Order: sequence, then C-alpha cells, then structure tokens
Amino acid sequence: MKKVDVAILGCTGTVGQRLVELLHDHPWFNIVAVAASERSAGKRYGEVAGAKWHLPTNVPEEVASMEVVNTSVREAEAPLVFSALPSDIARHVEPEFAEAGCTVVSNASAFRMEEDVPLIIPEVNPDHLRLIDLQRERRGWSGCIVTDPNCTTIGLTIPLKPIYDRYGLERVYVATMQAISGAGLPGVPGLLITDNVIPYISGEEEKVVNETRKILGKLEDSRVSPANIKIDASCNRVPVVDGHTESVFLVTESEVEVGEVKEVLREFRGEPQRLKLPSAPEQPIIVREEVDRPQPRLDRMAGSVPGMSVSVGRIRRGSEPNTLMLTLLSHNTIRGAAGAVVLNAELMLAYNLVR
Amino acid sequence: MKKVDVAILGCTGTVGQRLVELLHDHPWFNIVAVAASERSAGKRYGEVAGAKWHLPTNVPEEVASMEVVNTSVREAEAPLVFSALPSDIARHVEPEFAEAGCTVVSNASAFRMEEDVPLIIPEVNPDHLRLIDLQRERRGWSGCIVTDPNCTTIGLTIPLKPIYDRYGLERVYVATMQAISGAGLPGVPGLLITDNVIPYISGEEEKVVNETRKILGKLEDSRVSPANIKIDASCNRVPVVDGHTESVFLVTESEVEVGEVKEVLREFRGEPQRLKLPSAPEQPIIVREEVDRPQPRLDRMAGSVPGMSVSVGRIRRGSEPNTLMLTLLSHNTIRGAAGAVVLNAELMLAYNLVR
Amino acid sequence: MKKVDVAILGCTGTVGQRLVELLHDHPWFNIVAVAASERSAGKRYGEVAGAKWHLPTNVPEEVASMEVVNTSVREAEAPLVFSALPSDIARHVEPEFAEAGCTVVSNASAFRMEEDVPLIIPEVNPDHLRLIDLQRERRGWSGCIVTDPNCTTIGLTIPLKPIYDRYGLERVYVATMQAISGAGLPGVPGLLITDNVIPYISGEEEKVVNETRKILGKLEDSRVSPANIKIDASCNRVPVVDGHTESVFLVTESEVEVGEVKEVLREFRGEPQRLKLPSAPEQPIIVREEVDRPQPRLDRMAGSVPGMSVSVGRIRRGSEPNTLMLTLLSHNTIRGAAGAVVLNAELMLAYNLVR
Amino acid sequence: MKKVDVAILGCTGTVGQRLVELLHDHPWFNIVAVAASERSAGKRYGEVAGAKWHLPTNVPEEVASMEVVNTSVREAEAPLVFSALPSDIARHVEPEFAEAGCTVVSNASAFRMEEDVPLIIPEVNPDHLRLIDLQRERRGWSGCIVTDPNCTTIGLTIPLKPIYDRYGLERVYVATMQAISGAGLPGVPGLLITDNVIPYISGEEEKVVNETRKILGKLEDSRVSPANIKIDASCNRVPVVDGHTESVFLVTESEVEVGEVKEVLREFRGEPQRLKLPSAPEQPIIVREEVDRPQPRLDRMAGSVPGMSVSVGRIRRGSEPNTLMLTLLSHNTIRGAAGAVVLNAELMLAYNLVR
Repeated sequence: MKKVDVAILGCTGTVGQRLVELLHDHPWFNIVAVAASERSAGKRYGEVAGAKWHLPTNVPEEVASMEVVNTSVREAEAPLVFSALPSDIARHVEPEFAEAGCTVVSNASAFRMEEDVPLIIPEVNPDHLRLIDLQRERRGWSGCIVTDPNCTTIGLTIPLKPIYDRYGLERVYVATMQAISGAGLPGVPGLLITDNVIPYISGEEEKVVNETRKILGKLEDSRVSPANIKIDASCNRVPVVDGHTESVFLVTESEVEVGEVKEVLREFRGEPQRLKLPSAPEQPIIVREEVDRPQPRLDRMAGSVPGMSVSVGRIRRGSEPNTLMLTLLSHNTIRGAAGAVVLNAELMLAYNLVR
Repeated sequence: MKKVDVAILGCTGTVGQRLVELLHDHPWFNIVAVAASERSAGKRYGEVAGAKWHLPTNVPEEVASMEVVNTSVREAEAPLVFSALPSDIARHVEPEFAEAGCTVVSNASAFRMEEDVPLIIPEVNPDHLRLIDLQRERRGWSGCIVTDPNCTTIGLTIPLKPIYDRYGLERVYVATMQAISGAGLPGVPGLLITDNVIPYISGEEEKVVNETRKILGKLEDSRVSPANIKIDASCNRVPVVDGHTESVFLVTESEVEVGEVKEVLREFRGEPQRLKLPSAPEQPIIVREEVDRPQPRLDRMAGSVPGMSVSVGRIRRGSEPNTLMLTLLSHNTIRGAAGAVVLNAELMLAYNLVR
Repeated sequence: MKKVDVAILGCTGTVGQRLVELLHDHPWFNIVAVAASERSAGKRYGEVAGAKWHLPTNVPEEVASMEVVNTSVREAEAPLVFSALPSDIARHVEPEFAEAGCTVVSNASAFRMEEDVPLIIPEVNPDHLRLIDLQRERRGWSGCIVTDPNCTTIGLTIPLKPIYDRYGLERVYVATMQAISGAGLPGVPGLLITDNVIPYISGEEEKVVNETRKILGKLEDSRVSPANIKIDASCNRVPVVDGHTESVFLVTESEVEVGEVKEVLREFRGEPQRLKLPSAPEQPIIVREEVDRPQPRLDRMAGSVPGMSVSVGRIRRGSEPNTLMLTLLSHNTIRGAAGAVVLNAELMLAYNLVR
Repeated sequence: MKKVDVAILGCTGTVGQRLVELLHDHPWFNIVAVAASERSAGKRYGEVAGAKWHLPTNVPEEVASMEVVNTSVREAEAPLVFSALPSDIARHVEPEFAEAGCTVVSNASAFRMEEDVPLIIPEVNPDHLRLIDLQRERRGWSGCIVTDPNCTTIGLTIPLKPIYDRYGLERVYVATMQAISGAGLPGVPGLLITDNVIPYISGEEEKVVNETRKILGKLEDSRVSPANIKIDASCNRVPVVDGHTESVFLVTESEVEVGEVKEVLREFRGEPQRLKLPSAPEQPIIVREEVDRPQPRLDRMAGSVPGMSVSVGRIRRGSEPNTLMLTLLSHNTIRGAAGAVVLNAELMLAYNLVR
C-alpha cells in the first residue's frame, strides 16, 4: 500500500511532538509537512522543537531536518491533515483545509460540539463518522473535519461504554488527577505545581460532561442525541508528568456484579481491533486486580501499542447495589490526544473516508 | 492557671513530632514524659527524633534533652496522656493508662468505633463526650479514652456538619488526594510516589465512611446512632508533603443555594470558638472564592491558629438542584491529627473532664 | 521614628511578592506605591498578584487594595525605591529614579558589575557603599543605585567571607542545586522540571564568578579591585520550591582545620548584627552538625529572621590539607533576593544614606 | 549457541527487578533460579516482587510463575550467578557460590576493593579480569567473584577514561545529584525527599574516590596499582526517579581543547563494542551539544541499548587552561547496576571465563 501524505499542524507543542513521534515511521502515513506559527516558520523542525522537546526519545532525524511551514493551506496542504492547534486558531484554520478538500483529523476542541462534526473514539462510536455527510452538505466542503475528545473524556468514556451498554447509566461522578503534560508548554509553572494540587482546569469539567454525553449518544436521522446521563466532574492537576488518573463513582440502571463488570471491561473490543488498525491495542481496556493499581508512572504506557490502553482497577461496589466505583488511568498525550487522532485517521483510511 | 502535666506516647513519628511542636510551649500543658518503643527508650529525644525530623523547625531544645521512656504506665503516667501510637499497640497500651486514671486523648484508630468511646471533633460533636460515663461504668476505669477521627474524616466532616444541619444529606461521594505525611515514617517510599499517584490507602475508605457517620450521629440514651448518610470514598496518595485535598460531591435532602452555602460555612462556629480554646482557629472553615483554591501548598497552614482551619473552595451546584460540589483542604498532621488531639484535650480541660 | 515611604517596582513577580510580604508591616518602611508593567497598571494589587500568588500567606489586605501604578518616576516616586524589575527594564528605569533623587535598592542584575555601583551584602562588604560618591559624581545623580547580588552568589559569599579572611582562597568549585522559584513566574515549566534536573541556568555561572570576586574585593581609592580567586561554577535546577543548595570545594591558601572552620563560621557577625537591623538574623551562618543537613525543605527558613541565615553543613577536609568541602543552603527569594534588598535598605538608613 | 543457565540472587529489590527485566529474554542467558531472603522463599516471584514492582513494564510472565528460592548454593546453584544482594549478606554468601564453582558477577560492594577481586567496567579495564587467577590461587576457589562499581562511579569513570588517557588527570571534583532508585526499596521515604535535596549518601563518596582510582589503575604483576588522581566527591540525593547527574570539575595534566575533548569522548569504544556484546551500546558515551542537556528524564534511557550509554554535556573549559568542566548523566540501575553486571557477564562469556 502506498503511504498517504500527511501534514501536522501545531507540530511543536506537547501533542505535536507526540504526533511527530507516532507518525514519523508509521506504516500507513508519510509526513510531508510540519506546520506551526509564524514565529517558527522557516526554521528547521529540530531547531524549533528541540529547545522544548519533552520526550525521552530524540527528535526523529528525518523530521528534524524538515523546514517548518506556516499553518496555511498554501504551505501545508495534504490529503490527510493532523491538527494539534490551539482551539482559537483551529477555529479558523481547520475549515480552510476542509474546504480545500483535506481530511482534517483534529485534537482541538473548537468544533467538537458542533452538530455536524463527528467526535470519535473508534472503539466507542465509529458510526458517528456518518455525520461527515451532513457536514459536507451543510458547509459545502469537499474535505471534512473529524475530532477526537478531550484527554480526560477519552479515558473515562472508553470504560463507560461497555458498562453503559450492559447496565445503563444514570449518574457519573468523576474526580480527576491530571498530569502536567495535559496543559501543554509552557503550561503549568513548576513553581505552582511542585508539592501541590491545583483543583481547577479551565473549561475541562464542561468538556468531560458534554463530550461524554455526545460520544455515548445515538445517531438517528443523521443527528446525535446525547446520552441521557447526568455527569458531574471535578478536575484537578497533580505533580505527575504523564497519565490522567480518575476516581469514578457510577450509578447504574440495573444492579451490577463486580466479577461480571471486570469481564465486560476485559472483553470489550471495537472496530480498531476488528480492523487490526496499526495503533489499535489488542485490549482497549486492561483490568488490574492489584489493590493499588492503576498508577500513572507504572501504567501510562500500558497496552500492546504503548499508551493506547486504558487501565482500570479498584473495581468495587459502592454503598448501594446499583453503584459502582473504579479508578482509571490513561495516557493523556497518547490515547488522550496524539494517539487518538492517529487512530481516528487509521479508522477513516480503513473505511475509505480519506480522499 | 497551673499547667497540666502531660505525656506523649509515640513521640517520634510524624504525628508525635507535631505533638512535640504544638505542646512544648502550650499555655495549658507541660510535657513531663515522651515515650516511644523500646528501641528508642533510654536515649535523648533529640538523638532519636532528630534523625527523622521532618518539620522545618528545630527540635525544641527543652524536649530534645529529655530522655525517651517506655510506653508504659510505670514510666509515662500523667494526668493527661496524648497518644500517637500505631493502632495495634494503642489497643493494649491505652487501656492500661485509662485504668490507671489517666485521661487518654488518642489519635490512634484502635478504639474509635467502640460504642462507648467518644470520637470527637470539638466543633462538631462535643456532646458525644458524655459517652465517657458509659465507658467508665462499663470498663471500670477511673480514667478514660477519647479519640479523634482519621485525618481525611476530619477535613471532610467539619464542612459537612453545617451543610447537614441546614440541608440534610443523602449521599456523599468523596475522592481524596492525600499527602505523604499521612502515611507516617518511613511511610511511602520516595521511589513509588514521585511522578505518581497511588490510588489506594489501606483501611482509609472504611474509616471515612464509618467515622463520619458516627460523628454526625445523634447521642440518645447515652448511645450514638450513626447518621443515615450513604458515603462512598476513593482515597488516593499524591506527591504532596502535607495537606489532604478532597473533591466532594453531595446529594442533599433539600435544594441548595450556593451563596447561602458559602455563608453557612463561613459563619460556622463551635464550642472551641465559644470557649476561646488556645488551639481554636477563629474560623473553623475558610471559604475561598478564587477559582483555583484551595491548594495544599498555599492553604494547608490556613487559619488564625496555623493549620487548624479547613479551606473550602469551588463551591458549585452539580447537575441537579439538590447536588453540591466542593473541594476542601485540611492539614492532615495538624487539624487532622496532632492539632485534633490537642483541641480535644483543651475542650476536656475546659469542661473539667481531666482529673 | 517616622517610617520612610517606599515604592516597590516589579511588585507582582516572585521577588516582588516576597517584598510585599516583608515590607507591608516593616517597622521602618511604609509602602506608598506598588508598580508593575502597563498590563497590570490601574488594577488593584490583589487582583493582579492574587492570580499568581505563590506564598502560603494571603496577600496582605492593605496592599491588596492598592492600585498598581506604572514603573515611572511620575507615578512611583518615593525616597526609597525597591526594584525587583527584570534586568532589561531595570537598565533604563532605575537611572530615572536615581536621577530624580531616589535611593534605589535593586535586586536586578543590570548595574551590579558597573564600576561605580555598590554590590552589597551588608555582612560582607558594607564599606563598598562608598562607591555611591563616585557614582553620583560621575553620573550627576542626586539619588543612587545600590545593588544586591544574584541569589546563588549571596548564599555562597556569606560563608566564603570568614574563610577567605582566615585562610585565604585560591580556588572555588561550586555545583548548585537551585530552586524553581529562582526562575520567577511563569519560570520553568512544571512539565520540564518534574522528575528531572536541568543542568543549566542562563547567565548564572558568570554571575557567581564575577559577583563573588567583586564582593570579596578591596575598596581602594574609591575603586573595587576584585578578589584574586579562581572560581568555577556549575548551576543546576532541581525540583525544589525554595532554597538553593550548593556543594562547594575550596582550595585555601593556608591549611584548614575543620573544628576551627566551624567556629569561624559560627561566630561570624557583621554590621547588620552590630546595628541590630530589623532584618538581620542573629547568626548570619548556622553550622549544622548532622551528617545530612542542610536540606532545603527543613532549613530554608532558618534564622531568627526566617530565611535570612545561611545554613552550612558537611564541613570536611578534601584530599589535601588545604582543601575544604561543605554544603550550604540559603533561601533564594528571601536572603537571596527580597530580604537582601530590604537588608541593604536598612543598612543605608542606619548609615543615613537615604535622603 | 546454547544459553547459559543463570541464577539471580537478591531478585526482588530495585536492581533485582532490573536484572529480571534484562535477563528474562536475553539471547545468551536462561534464568533457572531467582533467590531472595527467607521471607520470600517458597512464594511465586510475581507475588513477592509484584507488590513492590517499580518498573513501567509488567513482571515477565515466565519469571512471575517461578518459585523464589533461598540464596544458598544448595537451592540456587548455576554456572553463572548474578548477585544484587545487600553488601553485608553478599560478604558471606557470594564466596560460597564461588567455592562451589560458580562464576559470580556481583553488584554488591562487599568485595570490590579486595586486592584479588576484579572491579570491572568492560569498556574501561577489561584486562583487570586477570585478577581472577590470583583470586583462585589465593582462595582455592574453582569459581570466582567479579564485581562492578557503584552506580555513581560507573557514570563518572566511563568518560574519565578517554580523558585520562589523552590528557592525564590530577584532580577530580564531583558533585552528584542522585536518583531515588539508587537507594533501593523502601529506600528514601517520600516524605523526606519531596521538595527537597538530601546532601548525604552513606558510604557513597568513599566509593566514588576509591573505586575510580582502582578502575583507572594499572595491572602490573597481577596487582592493580590505583591511579594517582586526587578525587573529592559530594553526593546528593534529589527528587528524581532514575538517572544520576554529576557536575564534574577536572584538572588535567596537559592543556585541554574542548572540541578535541568532545571528539575523544564521542569516539571512545571498548571491548564490548569490538566484541558486539548484546548489551553493549554502539556508543558508550553520547556527547550532547545542547546547552541544557543531559537531563535525567530525557537522557537516562539513552543509547542503542536503552540506559547503557552515558550522556555528557556542557563540556567547557574552567578558569585555567588545564581545567575542564562537564555534566554527565547515566542510568543508575541499568548502566550503573543491573546492566553493568550483565555486561560483565557477557564479557566473561565472550572471553570464555565462565565455566
């Protein structure tokens, strides 16, 4: 199979760096353009990204030598465009690419909640991709924009899916302990996060609530009606480099049985597994039986594709028969961001949705 | 007023160190004995505790030169005995002191849930001290044992009290982010907690559930009937030195109004404030209006008596009218442990309950 | 004594916050103006600084309500002006104040190495203040600029002084482990410093070398000739909130004796102690005998004036008779910055050098 | 080639865990026994080690199911024995294995400084293996003990070797910033290392001094005469999970030229590279040109064999022509411990020294 040419928009941030790491030797994709703000344009990628590289791998040589271009259609057009742009920039840049016929797989929040934009976790709601038809019709684009959810939402929604399908869900309370890398670069000052917890992340709680309901919603008559689940979230930043931990309390519709819940989670598979997509972990959900797992430092790279599985542990019943408690952990810049767009792109290619 | 002679059992651990710090120049108390395990007995306190001192103050000179004695009635008897013993040792040592006529104010969990043992937060349930009569009658002791709750429970129950009184409480979901000092010394290995979250603390969740229900319970006919509140807790350890943060979700009986909740919390006062006890903060609860407070590094020493106030912030309604969300922060080894026993002792002295 | 009116330039950064903390109830000074960049001017200090306050104390109420003004002579003139400005801004702003007759005590590096500008540690080289005469003569100012050294230099030079006087110094090798607060705000990203060491701090090593030589230099004919000591520094950033630790290797001119070195350090006193300045610690240097001290978390607030003493430990001979090794610790934003300018100002007031 | 059967003594500690990780699918070795203290003996390895596993990989399945045996010749004999025992236990256990004919490759410090025991870094002093003859002759063993140096020494001595050979060395001053994993488990309490530096590691500085001199020493007439270099070390613990950073000041015999030093380091190769040993990194030393590298979080896993290369950066001249400054970084439990014994074992096998 000939590799598909791809561009990366917003290539120097924490998610952009991960995208470069995941895509530079991807079996299906071929990086032809790395784009960033004007400040960086014209310089070598190695020079620009090297100074703030945060990964324990070197900048891939073949990308390091590429010249960074502007985030414009003129300079960065490609059949497939990965966007790790800040939301305010994504809002006006991504449509230009979609209009020019590009398939934009975006990690930005700008369009996630638009009625005609698919918000996709490939294992959970691949059918929502059909919103593309509505999108093209309405906007007159030959390309399209497909989004992935917020990092916290992804980690939460993957295990919620099989539980929702099996038991129904009335109520979700979730308290998060989120990694520093989720705030990007420069992000949270070291002075403010060392020996500390910051109990607030701007906009995060609303995203968790709204995105989760959309993803678990039903596609009917080319519209998604959000799942009727009441969700409350409390988002905290903790001094952890990578990996979001979430303490989850669930009120289900029917009574839960812990052993069965574990089985349901363990056996959960989706389209990426069926299609054997390159970035699909064999098990989307890894159930841990140890009393003190998952832990971010130990489990964030879990999965046959490192960082793509969600680890779930401490599964136990609450103080009523239809309540369930669990702790989950997912890598916020891999499964929760860069890996998420890559998996979306792979799904669309497998579905023949990339022109 | 002549100072009351006091002994400290378990004087070298993290809570014992705090007790020495709080009591060495206390206006009402006079340390006459510092007791620890046989390994330490016979040595100077400065020598034993100095090697693992974790506080940013020096070991008080007058205590540093004291000889550590064994935790036995023979060596450490005093009218008032502060116990920071491990629970398994407290179980057989504390009764010996109570039998010998000492008033034991204990931070150990050994007797907290016994029917005839008061589990006291002075601002919340000072009336439960009347259980002492039952205790003495039953056990034939001339002294007594009075306990304080687990550190996480204290931080939670203080703000729950005025909310419970005003709105009623059906349901409490709480996810904690607890400091390392809560695990004592050596406690959690640095290798396991750096860049990490450990989503489990042995026995902690049960304590939060049961102790909170007992403290908020009603004393009737010299028995405490636990409050009928359903509580679920998920306890996590985070890389923070001091200060437990808790994300709390409440389902109240009647509808809440956020502005009123803040007022109710801000104006909450109890017996320690009325009696102007030396360790009583002017405000037991400090309400923070900033969107990103409380934070452990900034707020753990809050209060007119440092570390004795609970900070509460992010007070907001959840997705239903009778749900309330908030984040609280309390110093786990001061208000949550050493300061708690000291305040209990002060209350008992003010009530003339120390013989 | 009537308090002297003072202004604070650069009032919102980490050093500016410390200055507000140290000056708001200072016995000699009265804050009349808090100045910052245009972005902040016109707003209340509480509003501007509160959002990035990093100290475990609240913004002092009386300052919180002050309006922040521009860093211009027109808006912020006062007899005594404390500058915590970034160096590039200090370079053109401080002279304007000096020209207008203000005594500028500056923490900025802009003028430290100018031949006619005193670089002062009050315990070490108070006589260098006489450079003011040269400065006024040359520049035609009625006011003046007096600087304090870089935070790392201060911690190093205070214990070097008595050793230099007693034994002479040929060589200094120093490797530092510097706190995050030294980089200001936003400063070092949390993502880059967590679980990490950054072995480089821009410009820092040159400052340590040159400033130390100037401070230990001799004032002759109204010129300072730098001390003839060879100094090599290697500066590292570590995940510590406050407190710079330095591993120091010394080659002295005459043979050292460890017990005597300790005594020389312990008994070191200077003008601030003689004059009993309000911010002078009783002991500028605290010698620790424990094998594993000083430590930043335990010792940074050391001293009778918290954070103003330098702690020195692990004093031992190296592999030759005229080599000495030690570890020192000083609070980088108190003794190393805000407290340093305050002590300079107190010294000048005591010397009648403030007009 | 048939794999050699190996035993691991001290299999549950931090180095033991790394040994299991490195050996369980090693091309030359086959784990036949995992031994630990009596407390663990008789249980499955997965059960014992799992509870304190600190690596972000799972316990290898084939080892997890093995039964842990006692550290006795009777239970753990094998042609090749890897020892990660505590030094006091190693002292009496390792000789029993050597006497029984086993080749013991040891990470313990017990025998490192014995005159007839090789202390080997394969790239630096492979010829010292000839001490085995002396050892066997003297002790009457059919097996032998071969040791590797302390983790800090290894990182230091590898880059010192080519510099020593090219320029000679008079003086080494080294200040270290060592990772928490170096202290094993439980090791340093989290409460004591968070937001802190501990400026002392018991016995470490003596090891750095003495071991470095032995390794760089000359083998003459089957004796090693230590290199005549004066070394002073100051060892600090910092809040970093893995990776020791060292700030090094060198006084060479002849004048250094920085560009040449870099070349000499970059081109350094040894026996492991010549023999293409499985654990030999292509480049023992990686020279970093960035101004702020090496950093532990980014560079500890450097090398074609992850964690086996030493990264060296900030190479610059000091204040005299024959002084050189640099910062180095090596993975303390891989190149500095488990990987070191594995490489020693590989070298001995390649040399036909394993019976």
